Amino acid sequence: MDLAQAEKSKKLQNALTRTVWTVIMIGGFLGLLAMGHVYMIILVMLCQTLVYREVTSLFSLKRKGDTGETPGRDPWSKTLNWYFFAVTNYFLYGESIIHYFKHVVFSDAQLAPFATNHRMISFALYTIGFVGFVMSLQRGYLKQQFGLFCWVHMTLLLIVVSSHFIVNNILEGMIWFWVPASLVICNDVFAYIWGITLGRTPLIKLSPKKTVEGFVGAFFSTVVFGIIWGTFFMRFDYMICPVRELGVSAFDTTVHCKPNPVFVWRDWNIPAPLSALLSTLLGRAITSIPYAPYQIHLFFMACFASLVAPFGGFFASGFKRAFNIKDFGHSIPGHGGMTDRMDCQFLMGVFTYVYYSNLIRETHVTVGSVLQTIVNGLTFHEQMELIADLKRYLEGQGIRVNV
Amino acid sequence: MDLAQAEKSKKLQNALTRTVWTVIMIGGFLGLLAMGHVYMIILVMLCQTLVYREVTSLFSLKRKGDTGETPGRDPWSKTLNWYFFAVTNYFLYGESIIHYFKHVVFSDAQLAPFATNHRMISFALYTIGFVGFVMSLQRGYLKQQFGLFCWVHMTLLLIVVSSHFIVNNILEGMIWFWVPASLVICNDVFAYIWGITLGRTPLIKLSPKKTVEGFVGAFFSTVVFGIIWGTFFMRFDYMICPVRELGVSAFDTTVHCKPNPVFVWRDWNIPAPLSALLSTLLGRAITSIPYAPYQIHLFFMACFASLVAPFGGFFASGFKRAFNIKDFGHSIPGHGGMTDRMDCQFLMGVFTYVYYSNLIRETHVTVGSVLQTIVNGLTFHEQMELIADLKRYLEGQGIRVNV
Repeated sequence: MDLAQAEKSKKLQNALTRTVWTVIMIGGFLGLLAMGHVYMIILVMLCQTLVYREVTSLFSLKRKGDTGETPGRDPWSKTLNWYFFAVTNYFLYGESIIHYFKHVVFSDAQLAPFATNHRMISFALYTIGFVGFVMSLQRGYLKQQFGLFCWVHMTLLLIVVSSHFIVNNILEGMIWFWVPASLVICNDVFAYIWGITLGRTPLIKLSPKKTVEGFVGAFFSTVVFGIIWGTFFMRFDYMICPVRELGVSAFDTTVHCKPNPVFVWRDWNIPAPLSALLSTLLGRAITSIPYAPYQIHLFFMACFASLVAPFGGFFASGFKRAFNIKDFGHSIPGHGGMTDRMDCQFLMGVFTYVYYSNLIRETHVTVGSVLQTIVNGLTFHEQMELIADLKRYLEGQGIRVNV
Repeated sequence: MDLAQAEKSKKLQNALTRTVWTVIMIGGFLGLLAMGHVYMIILVMLCQTLVYREVTSLFSLKRKGDTGETPGRDPWSKTLNWYFFAVTNYFLYGESIIHYFKHVVFSDAQLAPFATNHRMISFALYTIGFVGFVMSLQRGYLKQQFGLFCWVHMTLLLIVVSSHFIVNNILEGMIWFWVPASLVICNDVFAYIWGITLGRTPLIKLSPKKTVEGFVGAFFSTVVFGIIWGTFFMRFDYMICPVRELGVSAFDTTVHCKPNPVFVWRDWNIPAPLSALLSTLLGRAITSIPYAPYQIHLFFMACFASLVAPFGGFFASGFKRAFNIKDFGHSIPGHGGMTDRMDCQFLMGVFTYVYYSNLIRETHVTVGSVLQTIVNGLTFHEQMELIADLKRYLEGQGIRVNV
């Protein structure tokens, strides 16, 4: 009796912890969203660090169990793990900073040499780690050391590189991070809801709890939710403007930019027969429907979030099963490890970045940027030649140049 | 007696095979060097394919031994290995082709859509592989499958990515591939020669045959050889010109380009006291010494080839020891696997690329390229603004613009 009661009280305690921490997480997330891009980036970096710690510690845990009697592992491994983590972050965040804050970085006399030689420095740092690894090789530990080396690189590739793209999304405009992340969470929640209400057919052998009904139901729910959610947020300049300076929060009324054309409403002219039909049905003339191209992109992002991103979760499930663990860690009380909450976010973040940079981003050519290229890269003679060529081109287009 | 004789004859046979194949390799290499860049690139791709096959087959071999009684492995693995290999190559070589042959790719109506959406297509192809991997997961094979997945990614990262940089080096000018590759081979040979003649002190525990004397001797020999070797080849336009069109061979007399400034001879003015000293010693006035900046770069490349690149070899040695194998394979008769010959080349290739692109490559801004940017990216109004701005800038520099 006492035991049953103790267990019941423990379960209640767990549920309470889980609820409290869910509220804390959502509140914290919203708070950071409003506080500004820097805080969001710090959050992403914190998450990736926790995930990296969880995943790499898994390896050494497993190894400890394997060898049984060697509790003291070679001291280099942990240092090297974190060294490679630091170097990868230095390289990737350096790339982002140089790309997004060119004007700041190259005009600062102390930062400029780091910016110009960034890849060289990163390569040198990596090489030091590589040489350090080779020097740390010890007979009897070789298989373990190479295994860990492989493992660390894999984790860096899948987690740190993904996080880097997520940070780039934040810098391209908060909406490119906020909406995709919401889509994944929404899909998770709806898969659960549809699964427990209608779920019958098992979806994948590895996760017996996942059902086809949940998967399909979540797909439709996510598409509907995604289009509404995205349409709501695209009205705020704070959400859609790329970051120009980092000190901005949601409460600044100074954030303005010329919105990317995908956020601009336009009219879709309904084909005549359909228009006639609709007009008859509704009793008034309807010839066009307003829409923003972003809504079409929202549809594709929702599709990815509900049809492909879950495979990131299946991957993590299979992985946990392979290593016989329930959770990746205990970073979040009541929720297991950070990795358990982030598994689908990485895939979604990379997709968003590739999709955005390929189909949506505008390459901003401005008079200023071209002028900079010309002044730095061409001789005076070539500059005069350029003026003559450009004038000829404009006159060929029927435009009188009077400068 | 018969046995000893058989063994002796086998050894002789081996030595013969090895010599014959060494000659074939050197001859083939020189032949391909002369035949043109395309053949060299094909050679690099062939080498990386062989290395990839050797390294990934190692994993399945090892696994077979581990489980003992399961000779039939899940059929997906091999297909997936080569699928990921193909996708990585598609992505990386696509990037190179788009970068180096912009003018061809974007003006071709059939290639242009592939070029503009290259990253999107590559990501989609990778995602298909990822989903395929998750779908192929089977209980009881999980650890093995995740192990192979990790292994494949590691190999792709270390080998295919490196080869991609080596191919870029070829495209930047044959000398950026030919001289670094020679430096590594030269260092290997001299380390062996100095090692067997003077070698006493062991260098690294893992490879008892390597000695400090060999390492240090090879360093000095490689620096001297490198500067002479590089200085000899920098006189040929075929070696130093970046690739503009692929159909060119060493026998074409049409290859010409404005050489990168590092290949242009200049004079180093000897400081007065030293000059006076030298003049007294030599009996004639010496005030300057001719040099090309490339020779200084050769020094640094030789340093890397002899001080850092060998760690690529130590890495491979440690690896072979960890898995208890003598060679990676039997691709080259008498020489073991391709991997055994290539281990240091990858590290050297990446170094050369980073070093070259950071310190030597000139970003070519031409009147034509700027004009293209202007015409595509600016409105007529902005173009006129640019002309006015540029004119003002030139006049500020004291230059009369009369167009």
